[in-house]
Amino acid sequence: MAEKSKVTVAAVEGEVDYDALMKEFGVEPIEEFLKKFDKKNLPPMYRRGVVFAHRNFGRIYESIINKKKFAVLTGFNPSGPPHLGNLLFLKQALFFQEMGADVFIPISNDETYVFKKQASLEKATQIAYEQVIPDIIALGFKKKKTHIFVSTEERRVYELAVKLSAKTTFSTIKAIFGFDNETNPGAIFYTIVQAAHILLPQLQDFGGPKPTVVPIGIDQDPYMRLSRDLAEKAGFVKPSSTYHKFMLGLQGGKMSGSKPETCIYLNEKPDSVRRKVWRAFSGGGATLQEHKEKGGNPDIDVACQYLYFLFEESDKKVSEIFSGYRNGSVFTGEVKELLIKRITDFLKEHQKAREKAKKHVDDYMLK
Amino acid sequence: MAEKSKVTVAAVEGEVDYDALMKEFGVEPIEEFLKKFDKKNLPPMYRRGVVFAHRNFGRIYESIINKKKFAVLTGFNPSGPPHLGNLLFLKQALFFQEMGADVFIPISNDETYVFKKQASLEKATQIAYEQVIPDIIALGFKKKKTHIFVSTEERRVYELAVKLSAKTTFSTIKAIFGFDNETNPGAIFYTIVQAAHILLPQLQDFGGPKPTVVPIGIDQDPYMRLSRDLAEKAGFVKPSSTYHKFMLGLQGGKMSGSKPETCIYLNEKPDSVRRKVWRAFSGGGATLQEHKEKGGNPDIDVACQYLYFLFEESDKKVSEIFSGYRNGSVFTGEVKELLIKRITDFLKEHQKAREKAKKHVDDYMLK
Repeated sequence: MAEKSKVTVAAVEGEVDYDALMKEFGVEPIEEFLKKFDKKNLPPMYRRGVVFAHRNFGRIYESIINKKKFAVLTGFNPSGPPHLGNLLFLKQALFFQEMGADVFIPISNDETYVFKKQASLEKATQIAYEQVIPDIIALGFKKKKTHIFVSTEERRVYELAVKLSAKTTFSTIKAIFGFDNETNPGAIFYTIVQAAHILLPQLQDFGGPKPTVVPIGIDQDPYMRLSRDLAEKAGFVKPSSTYHKFMLGLQGGKMSGSKPETCIYLNEKPDSVRRKVWRAFSGGGATLQEHKEKGGNPDIDVACQYLYFLFEESDKKVSEIFSGYRNGSVFTGEVKELLIKRITDFLKEHQKAREKAKKHVDDYMLK
Repeated sequence: MAEKSKVTVAAVEGEVDYDALMKEFGVEPIEEFLKKFDKKNLPPMYRRGVVFAHRNFGRIYESIINKKKFAVLTGFNPSGPPHLGNLLFLKQALFFQEMGADVFIPISNDETYVFKKQASLEKATQIAYEQVIPDIIALGFKKKKTHIFVSTEERRVYELAVKLSAKTTFSTIKAIFGFDNETNPGAIFYTIVQAAHILLPQLQDFGGPKPTVVPIGIDQDPYMRLSRDLAEKAGFVKPSSTYHKFMLGLQGGKMSGSKPETCIYLNEKPDSVRRKVWRAFSGGGATLQEHKEKGGNPDIDVACQYLYFLFEESDKKVSEIFSGYRNGSVFTGEVKELLIKRITDFLKEHQKAREKAKKHVDDYMLK
């Protein structure tokens, strides 16, 4: 996605007022739907309010309940190797696949290149095939219900983008994306290509119009609104979206795949994981003594947050860690050691699965 | 092509000062090269100065002489059925194929749609396959040296356009094409897609960088300059171009495929050809008497011009008709009858060839 948002900046301070954001963007709390699911079927991020809002989730819920066809879509910018932050999106896609969805994953090598995140389109394409796609497959997606495509290699992308482009104007997209005279025309057109990615599952080739859910951060909502507007004009079902909270970068600021000090990559080695987690921003007291006396703040503590977002399955355990951290009985070091173990265990299995996955890339590509 | 040119407007008045245009656009007269060819190998439009200028034709001439690989490229906007004006481009492509070139013909269904020349992309694509491509094949292109592609159906087009787009800016293309806020983003990006069409023959898939000649009207030169600039930045050989004079529309103004009264389509029936030619703008005297006394002007007479551009092989005959018309001994009616016969004979054979060609479309498509 093109980056242009005040929300993202606020997010990195760990002080986001999500209720205010829901009002600002006009989206609904998702709680009422999540209550209807059997809690044990819900992954942690749904049980804990990490995913907190939606647009038109009703039609996704109906599809799940009535076992009707629907899709989940999550894009991937192959600017570098995947990292833990990407799991947030992919795990939501996995959940919806479990609930019956066909998963569509556009790998936007065009986005990488036109926004100058890589020096060549070839490099972005290489990262897509050698790193991103094996990582995705290794997470356990089902072969028959997963459709990955590299944006410039799937001719239906440009074709659909051409169709959609005639239904909007330069001034509309300029208002959303904020171009200047130095913007390259590929970046301008990419706004429409992204909408084409989102609406691609609704082509006749893939069974025609159907509900599609796109899990995103709330800062990405303006792009979603463009896709919804174009969907309506082009005779597709308006895509639904869910919104998740921002996951902190290792240093407490923004997480970015192009800044190795802010994230842990899925190909990271145990030594490096240990080093990075130990250096991560802590919400604990300045000294052990101070922490014991005054406690710490788990809401801005990177290790606590990573357990909460992704790496601690047990709600009870999370709750204990958070309250202990707050009252000073649980220390930063303990939490970091636990997180290191969890990430290391996960990556060890994941990296094995990833090597195997490399041989099966073709089976998961969109036909 | 997006239409935005003072040149075109002047052209339709039949009063174009081509020497001034060469200076304005900084292109060279092509005469010095044409003199080197054996005159009997040159089609009429080269012998008669219809093709009058060039950029970098030297490298095309060298390729011909040294039997080196080169390409000729001419695009086709499938907004409607092909007409006589399109022959001007295609006959030049045929000539270069005769001289050893591989012919590349992009059919820009995306252009048709984003510039709203058809209500749907599907309709433009249908016209491409059912009308344009059979017409092209019927003109006698060689199967193995002809590579036709429909823009949205050839995935390398968007891929190359993405690569090229990062090498220019919005302000650069805006200066050439003149967008406003209502322009759709597909039309903005099409400027780059057109450059991708022109540079496509130079991809490794097709043997890598090579001289490519693009026969155009001089009003299209700004687009050519963009392609040349992008070629240089992307490591391709700068494409060469040749410039031909404007062919008049039937009513003396501009010829346009979307205005049936201005052109004769390649699928036109003899009755209709006769009717249209009889109604065509005449440069003759207002009355037969006046014509006999004062003569007419063959330079603005549509029938004379069509013979000159395309339908009279013999230079001697053209010269006799023109001088006779000027001195009043050759009448409008005679010239029109000759033209009707020529067009009708050509279309009769062409329409037969076209029906046969429909079965061989696949053989001519880019692989």
